[in-house]
Amino acid sequence: MPKNVNHEEKKDQIAEAAWRVILNHGMEGASVRNIAVEAGISVGALRHYFATQDELLVYAMTLVTEKVKERVEHIAALDLPPQEKVIKILCEIVPLNKQTMTEMEVWFSFIIHLRHKGDRFALQSDGVLNGIRAVVEYLDANRMLLPGLDQAVETERLYALVDGIALHAMLEPQRLKREQIVAVLTRHIQSICKEA
Amino acid sequence: MPKNVNHEEKKDQIAEAAWRVILNHGMEGASVRNIAVEAGISVGALRHYFATQDELLVYAMTLVTEKVKERVEHIAALDLPPQEKVIKILCEIVPLNKQTMTEMEVWFSFIIHLRHKGDRFALQSDGVLNGIRAVVEYLDANRMLLPGLDQAVETERLYALVDGIALHAMLEPQRLKREQIVAVLTRHIQSICKEA
Repeated sequence: MPKNVNHEEKKDQIAEAAWRVILNHGMEGASVRNIAVEAGISVGALRHYFATQDELLVYAMTLVTEKVKERVEHIAALDLPPQEKVIKILCEIVPLNKQTMTEMEVWFSFIIHLRHKGDRFALQSDGVLNGIRAVVEYLDANRMLLPGLDQAVETERLYALVDGIALHAMLEPQRLKREQIVAVLTRHIQSICKEA
Repeated sequence: MPKNVNHEEKKDQIAEAAWRVILNHGMEGASVRNIAVEAGISVGALRHYFATQDELLVYAMTLVTEKVKERVEHIAALDLPPQEKVIKILCEIVPLNKQTMTEMEVWFSFIIHLRHKGDRFALQSDGVLNGIRAVVEYLDANRMLLPGLDQAVETERLYALVDGIALHAMLEPQRLKREQIVAVLTRHIQSICKEA
């Protein structure tokens, strides 16, 4: 069957149904049957789009990273001062609203699930490290980075900060508010940059 | 039955058997039966120490945080320069060896598992945030912190950094080496402190 927009759209709808099942019942509940029910289609119809459960789950996880990537690329293309652009990009990676919180939870459940599955899935890189590396290089190319910094250490430090605060945003939404997250990311970027 | 050392020791042995089961089979595999097999005792004998699976799992998770706390308190009591002491403490929270890696994996599986169980367990705070807050206050009390820092922001930033790099150490042990982790933590503490 040739790929077409409707086919892709339907796959995305099923993948998003899988997200909802994972959110509500964990990976243990992410059976083909449950996902078909959530998507409002028959198991037979679902099999038309995804031959196996693994294929469906890998697609659902890849869709998470694609959505983040799309938003980041949109911001990267905007005409903004470098520091402001970088902070906006980091705010797309960290879950600051319901949509990104959902993505993070799904991605996370998936990552933890995969640790006990070994080679059944090829472990997907989530691309965040590459994005962080690009951010540090971008600041450097724009002569914004403070002189004398070790870029490898700064990349690892920012990567840990972003994933750590994303984790806390997910696990402690009552305690950690959006303004605090933005303040932490802003403070960190300012601390490695010359004054704007 | 009165508490005694042998009784506590046996409970710890069973809890550590639970850790191994969680590590190898995930939380889904952490049945009383599997844990009893791993501990080399009968289900009946296990029930003597833990009446329910929930009681056993909560104990096993609490034991993780107690072990970290013990090591941190040991370092806190040493006579060391403040920055060095703080870096050593952070290195006990982040998994830098097989033992701490195991603890982190178990704690993590547990946290993710609890998200789908609602109120069946009272969600345990892992105490890391309190520890980080104490570290920042300790640096401040020793007049090591750079002037003008917002302590609330710095606490949140260090907390995110520590949990983020702990997560990466767990998920990417091949890529992220002990020396890099120590370099990132050292760089961060130096960046918020006056020169030692």
